[in-house]
Parts: sequence; structure tokens; C-alpha cells
Amino acid sequence: MSTSTEADNGSRSSGSYHHGNLRAALVEAGLHLLEQGDTADFSLRELARQVGVSPNATYRHFANKEALMMAMAAEGFRRFTFALTEGAASGNGFFGAGRGYVGFARKNPALFRLMFGRFTSTHHSEELGEAGQTAFTVLSSGVAGFLGAPADDPRVKTVALQCWSLVHGLSHLILDGQMDTMGDIDELVGAVLRPPGMGK
Amino acid sequence: MSTSTEADNGSRSSGSYHHGNLRAALVEAGLHLLEQGDTADFSLRELARQVGVSPNATYRHFANKEALMMAMAAEGFRRFTFALTEGAASGNGFFGAGRGYVGFARKNPALFRLMFGRFTSTHHSEELGEAGQTAFTVLSSGVAGFLGAPADDPRVKTVALQCWSLVHGLSHLILDGQMDTMGDIDELVGAVLRPPGMGK
Repeated sequence: MSTSTEADNGSRSSGSYHHGNLRAALVEAGLHLLEQGDTADFSLRELARQVGVSPNATYRHFANKEALMMAMAAEGFRRFTFALTEGAASGNGFFGAGRGYVGFARKNPALFRLMFGRFTSTHHSEELGEAGQTAFTVLSSGVAGFLGAPADDPRVKTVALQCWSLVHGLSHLILDGQMDTMGDIDELVGAVLRPPGMGK
Repeated sequence: MSTSTEADNGSRSSGSYHHGNLRAALVEAGLHLLEQGDTADFSLRELARQVGVSPNATYRHFANKEALMMAMAAEGFRRFTFALTEGAASGNGFFGAGRGYVGFARKNPALFRLMFGRFTSTHHSEELGEAGQTAFTVLSSGVAGFLGAPADDPRVKTVALQCWSLVHGLSHLILDGQMDTMGDIDELVGAVLRPPGMGK
């Protein structure tokens, strides 16, 4: 994180940042601008100013804005995986993970759209691929556990896609305001993602 | 539909259109421009030129572009309802309707995003409300029939939201390219929306 003093001292160089720190600071600032503006409609130049480094310093880490956005999406998938595992640990395992999925989307709507929008299906990096794969593996393992089936059972893939579709659709319908007339959103999410036999 | 002769004759007036016909022609042309450009990034003026009438003629039907877009979304919901009922009639009732939902999204991606995006949750008209409600009623009736429960059974609402979320999420994941690495999309849709006990 850049303080105003660091920004003043470092405004023409990246000397105040350790290499890895500046990369992380740029990703963090990018994520902040993304949620503020609701779209990734900012420039690397603007980002450099926010972090308090020269535009050239950003190019040492990201060849262009697309490279930064891939790193932002990858960081998003790491946080998202954490939200899934945290949700699963909070109770009702598999269904808790589903609530973690929808909760992440509601807290990070622009990041959610970046992670699951056309950008990530048309831009690929090793870091992004790994982060996305880890998230999908967590989902599939949860399904395998729920079904009591080995991970390579063909039913696991189908049920994982069904579960993914369900929580993804619910997230989109909420973010797009399509559930606004359906009553309290928290109650609705609870009802849609309630384990069978847990009462109405 | 405007032919080139009509367009030439009627380029400065709407005299060649019966009142209702021009409205329908404007909606049709709007839907065409929407899918061509993938967004609703066109002007009423451009639309008037396409249909072969003066810009003023469009204002007799639509006070502004938002009003036209609401009519386009309403027409979308009517076609969508047809796709659901046609899907249901094609076999496996309820599951066929789900395939109709996803099929509609794949054939009309920009219209699908217009119908279920933020626009329709922030812009309201009687026509749009009715068309959307009819689609939701078809979904709910299908669920009630599947459960063998009366339409006002509280389970119906929850299961309808679960089904809606599932087909909506699957549609979005496909449109956004997130299923591109998962194999053949038709097979995948078939597997995800297969009735229990219908084989692997």
C-alpha cells in the first residue's frame, strides 16, 4: 500500500518498492479502481499515479493493461477460492461453499464480471489458468465429497457443472437486479442454497 | 417489413406504414441492430434510416431510445416464452424448457443480455412487465407440474428460482466463453439438463 509520503518520494521512480511489492500494489490499486468505477475503464497511467510511481515503472511488471487485468483476475480467483473454502468451513460444507460463491459476487461485482466474463475466456496467462483451475478443483472436490464418489467419476463433472451454473446464475440475477422484486436477497439465497431436509 | 421501394417512397414520412406496423418495424429493426452490434449502441436516427422513415416518425411511437429498448426487451420476452413452451413440447417437458432457455440465449446473445441485464431492472413499462411476468409464470407452472404441487405451494417458488438460476448461469457461462474448454457445448447442455434416470 502506498502512503502519501511514499507517493511523494516515489512519484518518478519505483525505488521505494521491492520488485514483488510494486507488482502487488499495482494489482491491489487496479482492483480498487475496478470496483470504484464498476468497469476496468482506467489507464495504466492513472494506476501509476495512484500508486505513486512513474508510468514506466508499471511496464516493468505489465507489458500492457491486459496483462494487469489478467493478474487482477488471477488475484480475484485466489480470493474467490478462499471465499469458497471459508463458506464450506462455516457450515453445511458444500452448500456453504455455494453461499460463499454468491457472497463473493455480491461483494465484488465488477471483479466477478471480470473473472467470469469474456475477458478471461479470450486472454490467457499461466497465473490466471492456475488460479482459475484451483477454484474449479475446489468446487469439484466439494461435489465429489457430497456425492461420496471418486473425483474422476463422470457424475462429478456433470454435477459440478450443475452446481456451478446454479450459483453463477443466482449471482448474475442478483447483480443484474433481476431478484429485486423477489423479497429479501439474503433470505432468497438461503432458500435457494439450503440443503435438502433443512426445513423451509 | 420495409422493402427498398417503401423506404424510398417513405423516407421523409411514415405514410407507408399503418400505425402499428411502423412500431413493430422499428422494434424488429432495433432487434436486428442489437444482435449485429452485440450492444444497443445505436441511435433512433440510425434506426429511422434503416426502416426508411424520418426520425420524427419514430418519436410518435417511442419518446426516446429507452422506450424503444423496453419494447425490444418485451418482444424478446414474448419470443423467449415461445422458446420455453416449444422446448417443453419437444420432449422431457420441464427439461426441454430448460434447453429452450439456453438455446434462446445462444441464438440471441445480445437480446438475452438486454432482457436479463440491469436495463430491465431499472426501466419499467406495462408491456415489459407483462411480457416478463408471462415468461416467469410459464417457468413456475412447469415447476409446479414437475413437483405435482399447486402453483401457490411455497416449494414451487424456491424450486423455480433454483431452476431459473441453473439455466441462467449455464447460459451466461456459455455466452461468456467459460465453457469453451469443456468439450462440445450441445453435449454439455444435454448432460447438465438431463432428467434423472435418462442414462449417463
